[in-house]
Amino acid sequence: MPTTQQDQLSATFAALADPTRRAILARLATGEATVNEIAEPFEVSLQAVSKHLKVLERAGLISRGRSAQWRPCRLTAEPLEDVSDWVSRYRAFWDSGFDRLDRRLREIQKGQNGEHDDH
Amino acid sequence: MPTTQQDQLSATFAALADPTRRAILARLATGEATVNEIAEPFEVSLQAVSKHLKVLERAGLISRGRSAQWRPCRLTAEPLEDVSDWVSRYRAFWDSGFDRLDRRLREIQKGQNGEHDDH
Repeated sequence: MPTTQQDQLSATFAALADPTRRAILARLATGEATVNEIAEPFEVSLQAVSKHLKVLERAGLISRGRSAQWRPCRLTAEPLEDVSDWVSRYRAFWDSGFDRLDRRLREIQKGQNGEHDDH
Repeated sequence: MPTTQQDQLSATFAALADPTRRAILARLATGEATVNEIAEPFEVSLQAVSKHLKVLERAGLISRGRSAQWRPCRLTAEPLEDVSDWVSRYRAFWDSGFDRLDRRLREIQKGQNGEHDDH
């Protein structure tokens, strides 16, 4: 059964599963910005951007200022740190190239079996 | 507009946005396994596990053997490396504790403004 922390991680991954939302985070990494400033480079409506911001806010990836008129968005790093912690458990797999090596060995074995079958 | 690589990253994040799928990856990190072996510790149907495996396979997070009877699943590290590369761009934010510091400063400022308003 998923714990609350796991659900938080699921919400973070779901929020990151969209290129526009990732581009918004990249923009906010350069500094806080209003909805209008964030929307400017995108070919989507202000409404669509607002929707993306809501998803990011629910996932805790951004926070927004209190002032009603000027509600700048800013990046919140904690969920990204959780993603980094999670993925780092698998580092050994790509650092060692183990899966590539394993696949290559299997291809060689398959090739040898194929030769054997032909005889 | 999203590039193909970005869509791949979206597919990876979407596949990771589920605690059962992440648990399956953790299981496969210990070695390849059949669908039955993977399903064993989970309180979900074999059908549900098969569905999760299809999502993981489409995202390139696992690969499956060719043999019809014995199709072991194994972890494929490349998409996880892409996730690691992506998230590492934000490392400065949590390493420096910048966002926490920034938030704390704002809270202090807000408190001072509040005091000022009271006078």
